[in-house]
Amino acid sequence: MREPLTEEKVFKDPVHDYVYVQDQTIWELINTKEFQRLRRIRQLGTTYLTFHGAEHSRFSHSLGVYEITRRIISQFERHGYPDWPTEERLVSLCAALLHDVGHGPFSHSLEEIFDTDHEVWTCHILLGDTDINKVLRQVSDDFPDQVAAVIQKTYPKPIVVSLISSQMDADRMDYLLRDAYFTGVNYGTFDLERILRVLRPYQGKIVVKESGMHAVEHYLMSRYQMYWQIYFHPVTRSSEIILRQIFRRAQELNEQGYAFRWMSGPLKQLLNNTLQLDDYLKLDEPLAQTAFAEWADESDELLSDLCRRFLHRQLYKYVTIDNPDETLLLEVTDALQAIGLNPDYHMEIDYPFDLPYDVYRPDQNNGEKREKAPILLLDSEDRISEISVKSDIVRSITGLHQGQYHLYFPEEPLRQNKALLSERMVKLFKLD
Amino acid sequence: MREPLTEEKVFKDPVHDYVYVQDQTIWELINTKEFQRLRRIRQLGTTYLTFHGAEHSRFSHSLGVYEITRRIISQFERHGYPDWPTEERLVSLCAALLHDVGHGPFSHSLEEIFDTDHEVWTCHILLGDTDINKVLRQVSDDFPDQVAAVIQKTYPKPIVVSLISSQMDADRMDYLLRDAYFTGVNYGTFDLERILRVLRPYQGKIVVKESGMHAVEHYLMSRYQMYWQIYFHPVTRSSEIILRQIFRRAQELNEQGYAFRWMSGPLKQLLNNTLQLDDYLKLDEPLAQTAFAEWADESDELLSDLCRRFLHRQLYKYVTIDNPDETLLLEVTDALQAIGLNPDYHMEIDYPFDLPYDVYRPDQNNGEKREKAPILLLDSEDRISEISVKSDIVRSITGLHQGQYHLYFPEEPLRQNKALLSERMVKLFKLD
Amino acid sequence: MREPLTEEKVFKDPVHDYVYVQDQTIWELINTKEFQRLRRIRQLGTTYLTFHGAEHSRFSHSLGVYEITRRIISQFERHGYPDWPTEERLVSLCAALLHDVGHGPFSHSLEEIFDTDHEVWTCHILLGDTDINKVLRQVSDDFPDQVAAVIQKTYPKPIVVSLISSQMDADRMDYLLRDAYFTGVNYGTFDLERILRVLRPYQGKIVVKESGMHAVEHYLMSRYQMYWQIYFHPVTRSSEIILRQIFRRAQELNEQGYAFRWMSGPLKQLLNNTLQLDDYLKLDEPLAQTAFAEWADESDELLSDLCRRFLHRQLYKYVTIDNPDETLLLEVTDALQAIGLNPDYHMEIDYPFDLPYDVYRPDQNNGEKREKAPILLLDSEDRISEISVKSDIVRSITGLHQGQYHLYFPEEPLRQNKALLSERMVKLFKLD
Amino acid sequence: MREPLTEEKVFKDPVHDYVYVQDQTIWELINTKEFQRLRRIRQLGTTYLTFHGAEHSRFSHSLGVYEITRRIISQFERHGYPDWPTEERLVSLCAALLHDVGHGPFSHSLEEIFDTDHEVWTCHILLGDTDINKVLRQVSDDFPDQVAAVIQKTYPKPIVVSLISSQMDADRMDYLLRDAYFTGVNYGTFDLERILRVLRPYQGKIVVKESGMHAVEHYLMSRYQMYWQIYFHPVTRSSEIILRQIFRRAQELNEQGYAFRWMSGPLKQLLNNTLQLDDYLKLDEPLAQTAFAEWADESDELLSDLCRRFLHRQLYKYVTIDNPDETLLLEVTDALQAIGLNPDYHMEIDYPFDLPYDVYRPDQNNGEKREKAPILLLDSEDRISEISVKSDIVRSITGLHQGQYHLYFPEEPLRQNKALLSERMVKLFKLD
Repeated sequence: MREPLTEEKVFKDPVHDYVYVQDQTIWELINTKEFQRLRRIRQLGTTYLTFHGAEHSRFSHSLGVYEITRRIISQFERHGYPDWPTEERLVSLCAALLHDVGHGPFSHSLEEIFDTDHEVWTCHILLGDTDINKVLRQVSDDFPDQVAAVIQKTYPKPIVVSLISSQMDADRMDYLLRDAYFTGVNYGTFDLERILRVLRPYQGKIVVKESGMHAVEHYLMSRYQMYWQIYFHPVTRSSEIILRQIFRRAQELNEQGYAFRWMSGPLKQLLNNTLQLDDYLKLDEPLAQTAFAEWADESDELLSDLCRRFLHRQLYKYVTIDNPDETLLLEVTDALQAIGLNPDYHMEIDYPFDLPYDVYRPDQNNGEKREKAPILLLDSEDRISEISVKSDIVRSITGLHQGQYHLYFPEEPLRQNKALLSERMVKLFKLD
Repeated sequence: MREPLTEEKVFKDPVHDYVYVQDQTIWELINTKEFQRLRRIRQLGTTYLTFHGAEHSRFSHSLGVYEITRRIISQFERHGYPDWPTEERLVSLCAALLHDVGHGPFSHSLEEIFDTDHEVWTCHILLGDTDINKVLRQVSDDFPDQVAAVIQKTYPKPIVVSLISSQMDADRMDYLLRDAYFTGVNYGTFDLERILRVLRPYQGKIVVKESGMHAVEHYLMSRYQMYWQIYFHPVTRSSEIILRQIFRRAQELNEQGYAFRWMSGPLKQLLNNTLQLDDYLKLDEPLAQTAFAEWADESDELLSDLCRRFLHRQLYKYVTIDNPDETLLLEVTDALQAIGLNPDYHMEIDYPFDLPYDVYRPDQNNGEKREKAPILLLDSEDRISEISVKSDIVRSITGLHQGQYHLYFPEEPLRQNKALLSERMVKLFKLD
Repeated sequence: MREPLTEEKVFKDPVHDYVYVQDQTIWELINTKEFQRLRRIRQLGTTYLTFHGAEHSRFSHSLGVYEITRRIISQFERHGYPDWPTEERLVSLCAALLHDVGHGPFSHSLEEIFDTDHEVWTCHILLGDTDINKVLRQVSDDFPDQVAAVIQKTYPKPIVVSLISSQMDADRMDYLLRDAYFTGVNYGTFDLERILRVLRPYQGKIVVKESGMHAVEHYLMSRYQMYWQIYFHPVTRSSEIILRQIFRRAQELNEQGYAFRWMSGPLKQLLNNTLQLDDYLKLDEPLAQTAFAEWADESDELLSDLCRRFLHRQLYKYVTIDNPDETLLLEVTDALQAIGLNPDYHMEIDYPFDLPYDVYRPDQNNGEKREKAPILLLDSEDRISEISVKSDIVRSITGLHQGQYHLYFPEEPLRQNKALLSERMVKLFKLD
Repeated sequence: MREPLTEEKVFKDPVHDYVYVQDQTIWELINTKEFQRLRRIRQLGTTYLTFHGAEHSRFSHSLGVYEITRRIISQFERHGYPDWPTEERLVSLCAALLHDVGHGPFSHSLEEIFDTDHEVWTCHILLGDTDINKVLRQVSDDFPDQVAAVIQKTYPKPIVVSLISSQMDADRMDYLLRDAYFTGVNYGTFDLERILRVLRPYQGKIVVKESGMHAVEHYLMSRYQMYWQIYFHPVTRSSEIILRQIFRRAQELNEQGYAFRWMSGPLKQLLNNTLQLDDYLKLDEPLAQTAFAEWADESDELLSDLCRRFLHRQLYKYVTIDNPDETLLLEVTDALQAIGLNPDYHMEIDYPFDLPYDVYRPDQNNGEKREKAPILLLDSEDRISEISVKSDIVRSITGLHQGQYHLYFPEEPLRQNKALLSERMVKLFKLD
């Protein structure tokens, strides 16, 4: 074990006021080049094209997750709760700080196109030849493995995992508050201090004192609001579609042996699916944006058009459709082709619930890869119940599915060729 | 003149809650590629390396300046003040929105190295072959010139200029509030709504009702706090030094005919001082950061070291020195050379008041290029006085100079060669 | 009609920043003694005994309801919506300002004991020999009747009534925000500015543009949280029980001809149910609290004990009970009597849903006296739908009943006589 | 010593989010009737007549001072600073909680009229036959004396005194933040968390780490703003004048043997200057307001007029005067008498700096009863300097005197008798 810092370090943070660093290990991790790289990856991907304030990076979010975890543990220690394994403090803090370190540029969008997974990269960074690995190994030889196990949810003590990954973990609590702050909406605010105060370590789990049930309800309702007003915003979806199509087109061209005017090593390897750690670490959003700026001048018109759309925020328009049945889709496809558009790129149907979010589900033992521990209440007689059993409002919103189909498409070419479209299509695309 | 929008557009803004767009011209200006480019230029340059929240762009600041200007004018119109020339509304709004459109990446630092001036570029963008020019010309043929005149402070009606450029203009009011919000400090907050309410158009100037004097005092004190705690922060100065040295070194190498491993067209022209508008518009912070990442692998060790320092935030250390006299500087220079460092790059003395800020100066008719109109109070008998005549606190802080000399240097090589340094130097560099 | 104020007046308000007064009539109404009296009536009754910040008065709430109404109307006027009858501005503003002017001290509690109704008193104040009536009559002879009609919901234009009284009226919007601010909880905050922006006058009703549905959902969820965490708080219920019992006992003693050590004219008339307007206006919370302080020394032990409990905040304890059946109640009654307590005063069963609140009900055409207009959405094709038809989350919480039975009792005498109680009663009263 | 609480208690507080109670003694003190009485004394006296939100009580302020003190001490303990005497924790917390317990209704105004001093009463309450004394004696027999010594600033360890009473003590820090919150102004906000973090116990004093100097400057500037915009507001001064005159007139009548229609025991003793502890504790603001309401019907016209003015907020008007010399005053006096007014009651000259405030004074060893310890900075080499030596801005505002003479008078009788006044007087009173 390494000594604490002789003097506490602080970071001024808009969400938590201050982030406190008390351990030499945490301080050194923050100063590694791999962690500093998170300053070049936005927390919310392309959301800044919808909410202009949302320009914050994964760097600040990672500090925030660390800080919430630190406060939870500090509270457990201050009260001396016997069910908290005090020796797990540092591994928990490191996992909290580093849980997102493997994210690449616009991760969620890229992971849909390429065979890549940020969690796998996080583990490569923890275990590979990196500065982070060097710092972690100073704690002990198997410390990098321990931190990686927490992130992979295979760590032997589930209470440590649940700090970072459960239905109400430090990760979610930070991003809801942070994304609300930077977008400027007030939906995402909930009473963090009260929730921290009612958390209890109990028999290998983190549970909530029943007196805090209303605060948890408030957290879940804030989450619901954030999903619908921020995360699923159809304009953000439009920018993600453009982004995915840029990479899809670049990959397609690459496979066809197209000679790019401009290419960089890490991008080439991404397109080839041959990324190694060193190059992965060079993939950041400035590089992606520089590529888009260069590709805006490529001779492939599809690629250059998509890149200009992204850079200059000329996104696809969307219309809401009730029922995207086969017949309708065929008709739309035919209409686009008839005016010289490419349906593979110039239209997309989006249904929000393809997304990895849900308001709240009490049990997820449904064979999914990732099961998030449910929220458990502890009553005054030490009985445990899952929150939707006790809370009418949580039960009533559990599993609530909402959302509409949206059809995305470039407006101008359709408007220019309106005369060639059927009346039904003109109405569908709202070109009147 | 063009028609208003049929439906008001809004942007959710963390500082002003909402930004309202009511004119077709404003809406189209925001959607030009030159304005969208401001999303790729940070408002506070390298400050995000000191305050991690300060990742906001000039895009959001420009919307904010527009919104404050809109609210001032809307208040003038609502009360029907006769001294407000109502026909100046649109030119004022356009100038507010576009006043920063010529900023390049890390402008303030770059302007110290290269022969470039963001205000000149702003006028090129307004008057050249750009989308912005096209939108402005739809108002009238000379409208681009009018907007440029406001920005150049040569517009015939000084009241319009003073909205955008005076001791208490929409620009400053937005950036103080916005920078305070994103850094997370509460020094910069003042009562914007009250100040807006006490502004009055009066004989070609904008003055403040005397009953609002305390609100103005509060604004000036907030400004004072922001300068000392945010804008002059010595860690931010350190990152700016690194940044300037990167460009100074690159320029030096370029002059020497050095073959860069990696170069891009716009950067090459910047280094050659031959930038044209098209390439200037391609210069953004993602491109600069991509260059730094590539140059981190250059064979020139000085350039690659500086680039790595910037990317991985391994900044120069600083110590406070009382009196940077010749003797001391010579001694420091000799000491650095003795251990193989280059004093041209590995040290820098910084005195905050070389910076283009001051707390408040009532008159600036001192031959400077830019004179900022002072803050004038209007009493109940329609007499005007400059605020420092009436306010003891403003008078007492007027012209207050504060600040210390800081010596910046790379810590590690000095620490490694500590044995070769004199005791006095060891103490100066705080290597104990 | 009377002229506007030559100069706008403002009140600094913690919730709305500033309250703007633009009409001579509104300014004079605020300065009447009957309106100033609202400074001596707390907005939340005894809630300050649970949340110490909740000391705000009905005066500030009334200004807030006025201000929200003013903003709604100002927005209607600015956009020139044809369905807003512009001539109804002043009557709407006056009704908003005065809607609560008839409230007495701790109204909700007193109205359960005495045959009194604050809305009836409001109309007496509007129509009787008062300063408010004088100011209103300066507008026109029938203006007091018009304002009273809005408050009684009999005004011929329902759109005016719905500003003040509907499922999402200015009254509710102000009190949710205000009570949240003063208690210090953040459950009650919602996006007021956005809601104001999506309100539309439409065919005699106020409807919500469908694009604002999520903001309305957020408002309803905030309301839900406020009810459960503030308005129904069991400690507040306990203080209300004490308060009601003080008045119940005083009335009982008065009927028995008890000679009070201290009595005041207005209180005597309250107890006799013979209150006239003049005396009603003298009934305020300082008078009630002075009475409690004096009655704390009365010879009637029940009355003096209750008064001391209220003054010194020695409230009844409560326990949650599942099913308050006859058998249990009889057993509790017997137990209390056995140790010399008076079950009429020393116990009370409370079920929160006896209270005049509900989360949201779309239709209330169930014969109730007061029907609150439901929230209607207006889609892009001008179709109207009630919100719970469109919003899954509103539908899922509509009519949700929640709440538990609580048994209230004085703890000390029970604890002192614990030996005399059955084991079952000791357990029920949690005396272990 | 008594045990800690088995379970921490919390109070929801709008300013500090939560107030934490961890000691049985603190919990019991809060529940005494003498402490609960503070709910019936407003923190800011008559300020609510100027800023309607300022209705908060000394109860919430006292909890706030306690909470800040608790946080300071907790930070000292967490870092294990050797200069903090850990055994002084409880006495410090009790003194913080109770420092204002002796305040009566509208204290500052009343103390100017009657021979009474809230600090003396605080000590009577701590040492007399009260519930508070009983709770304190459970700690030890001399504990009440110890707490009283802290409040009287005679406690042997000055570091304990300085927590509660110095230029930057817990009392001032709470009231600035709290008064700013409830009035709704944002002048009073400063970075409490940062200040708490830079406080250090050092050689019997509490000093500030020099790196926190700017945060202290910000605190002092906030204080300056609060004085001028809230505490010295001329409308508040007007209401205080009315209040003092009510009591002055009541005292005068009492001395003359006037038979009051209504009188209460504690008030009678106040007027007679024969108050004993029991009756003092019955003096609260509801009683004072009830008296005003009753006296509004007294036959003495002066008293009834003053009471009506206070209740219905019909305050004296004020005008600013440059130089209240003898000649002017005589002329005003004569003018008032000429139209039948009483200059002893119907006029008052007010100069704000008669008030017990000042922006900041480094040394106050000027024979005053109360010397507030100055703010000391501790540099990195453990040298101490008074802040105005290091901070230019503090030095520049130190001892700054500002403020204007105001003349207060009832407007209506002067306006009605305008014809009888000289032109000069009409102009002075602004009756045009």
